[in-house]
Amino acid sequence: MPYDMLFQYLSEVEKQILSVLKYSKVKDYFNPEDISESVFSYINRPAKRLRPSVLLMAAGALGGTEREQLAIPASAGIEIFHTWTLVHDDLIDNDSLRRGGPTVHEAIRNVSRTRQNLTVDFAVEYGRDIAILTGDMQHGWAITLFVDCALESGIDSTLILKLIKHLQSYVLGNLIFGEVLDVRYGMHDLSELKDIDEDKIIEMLWLKTGALYEFAGMAGALIGKNTCNFEDDEVQAVTHFASKCGTAFQLQDDILGILGDEAALGKPIGSDIREGKKTVIVYEALRNANESQRETILATLGNRTATGEQVQTVTKLLCELNGINKTKEFAANYISEAIPYLDNISDSRYKHLLLLWANYMLDREF
Amino acid sequence: MPYDMLFQYLSEVEKQILSVLKYSKVKDYFNPEDISESVFSYINRPAKRLRPSVLLMAAGALGGTEREQLAIPASAGIEIFHTWTLVHDDLIDNDSLRRGGPTVHEAIRNVSRTRQNLTVDFAVEYGRDIAILTGDMQHGWAITLFVDCALESGIDSTLILKLIKHLQSYVLGNLIFGEVLDVRYGMHDLSELKDIDEDKIIEMLWLKTGALYEFAGMAGALIGKNTCNFEDDEVQAVTHFASKCGTAFQLQDDILGILGDEAALGKPIGSDIREGKKTVIVYEALRNANESQRETILATLGNRTATGEQVQTVTKLLCELNGINKTKEFAANYISEAIPYLDNISDSRYKHLLLLWANYMLDREF
Repeated sequence: MPYDMLFQYLSEVEKQILSVLKYSKVKDYFNPEDISESVFSYINRPAKRLRPSVLLMAAGALGGTEREQLAIPASAGIEIFHTWTLVHDDLIDNDSLRRGGPTVHEAIRNVSRTRQNLTVDFAVEYGRDIAILTGDMQHGWAITLFVDCALESGIDSTLILKLIKHLQSYVLGNLIFGEVLDVRYGMHDLSELKDIDEDKIIEMLWLKTGALYEFAGMAGALIGKNTCNFEDDEVQAVTHFASKCGTAFQLQDDILGILGDEAALGKPIGSDIREGKKTVIVYEALRNANESQRETILATLGNRTATGEQVQTVTKLLCELNGINKTKEFAANYISEAIPYLDNISDSRYKHLLLLWANYMLDREF
Repeated sequence: MPYDMLFQYLSEVEKQILSVLKYSKVKDYFNPEDISESVFSYINRPAKRLRPSVLLMAAGALGGTEREQLAIPASAGIEIFHTWTLVHDDLIDNDSLRRGGPTVHEAIRNVSRTRQNLTVDFAVEYGRDIAILTGDMQHGWAITLFVDCALESGIDSTLILKLIKHLQSYVLGNLIFGEVLDVRYGMHDLSELKDIDEDKIIEMLWLKTGALYEFAGMAGALIGKNTCNFEDDEVQAVTHFASKCGTAFQLQDDILGILGDEAALGKPIGSDIREGKKTVIVYEALRNANESQRETILATLGNRTATGEQVQTVTKLLCELNGINKTKEFAANYISEAIPYLDNISDSRYKHLLLLWANYMLDREF
């Protein structure tokens, strides 16, 4: 499928939100230098900007270009909201790379050795501290951008207040629940986790990722249609559509975490295996493994010092034992379920973009 | 000075905000158990609830009891906002006690050994992870409570949006700036920090603590007077008053961190010394120390394994070398500067409470 139209849209959205962020006056409150640099580090690296794009496509689909443009601060807000969760997640996962550069805690750990003349131990703690506080600052900044949608763009104040409340309670709670489950599943062998199955793993994926895509679709739809009615049929349709596509996004993300191109993804392949991430891929492969294959997989999974060769062996097994194909199948099912939700939305350039985006969830390679 | 009237007010406020928090529907989104327990752990322990009380006193002083009552969700919001900063700060400072119980990261580290059957290393990481995510959840919850002030109490939506934006940009930026400075000052000997002086230390105290008290006064004043005009004379008067009292609060806090009663404070005395906290007390004492006293102080300050005896010796020196008295003097000056701001506010029970509170900043022993 030719995605040129989608890619062009994503790149326009990127320009628009980077401009909003660059000129945001909230920037004046990012201090000291370690914070102001860290707040922008992920934002300034190449990224797809899918969440803000979904928000704007949804706004356009239900309200046309004018409403789409009014939603720009909210779309910048959802990008920053996503960014703060990345900064905290990277620290929690002890990841060292993000979007082709060092994670915040890693970057600060390195520069503080010379910049603040810190000992190794203090540098590790200081990296952690700045990562926590950078995410906290971004969390606040994200909310101010939603506020701007009311105070600057003139979107209905009650709608913006309701969106902020929904984001800060239901959505945030889901993201955190998903993150905790991800951490906990990662700390144990699958053999110890008796009550885990594919449904549980997919629930975790939805919490961790789908919930924020759902919000992107819903917020865009509400702003686009200029209504406070969360139960409106069209709003609900776009919400469910975005939610299902979000789960497919994360399923594909897990595949790319095993088979993707390191340079294009900007993060090290194999880290999902070394961290012992519990994915549908791993679950399905273990289900189909014989005793010796099972042992091989479990010996490497979650072994932070596994060699490249060990990781390759397990990667091969995850493919051979149907882990990858099963995950692709799940993702394709989610997209098939998502698409009909848009049947009753009028045709438009934005609806076409949303459908392209849905298909792209299955085809993307980074 | 008899503080009975103030104490009675604080205890009424406590009842009101605990009830708001207990019945908040956002609670449904605190999952799993480790998060839902941790979100409430500090809140349910004895505390003075000064920030929400200042917000309500300010609202009452400019708008009477009716407006004060409408501000209750915001006062619960500022208490939770303060709470999330405590959870993250405790992790950053590696503190183990808060309000007489274990800090979040410490409590989770301990229970996860058995509850999740984790190894020591994983338990430490999991404690850190839950503390980060608990603070994040509370941060979101705090904002929903401000939103409720508009959606439930009927306070003007534009005012609430402006307050949320101010809190999430200016106030949050100041808190984070202060926290980073505190961490950085703590990582070095004062002798290495050439450009630090009492003004810098007090600036850091204001950022870390004064800024949120300032916001409590300002938010209460704006809600009380039912205006969006942040420059209103009475609003400005209450704002400056609360800001100065907030700095005095932190100066007294530093004194109690050296001389306070461990049981009453609910945190270990001596930890400020072992962490190497850079306070006016320490700065002044070092300024007055001879070479040998200076060496004694610097040898213990920031030494995380200092003995009780070493801590006692330094405590004695900090008193003898005028550190405590100088800090008391600074605090008293801030309160003297604060009080005249209320001259042009009409007399009322609330104004009387605000003045009692100001004096209490100097007299409090926990």
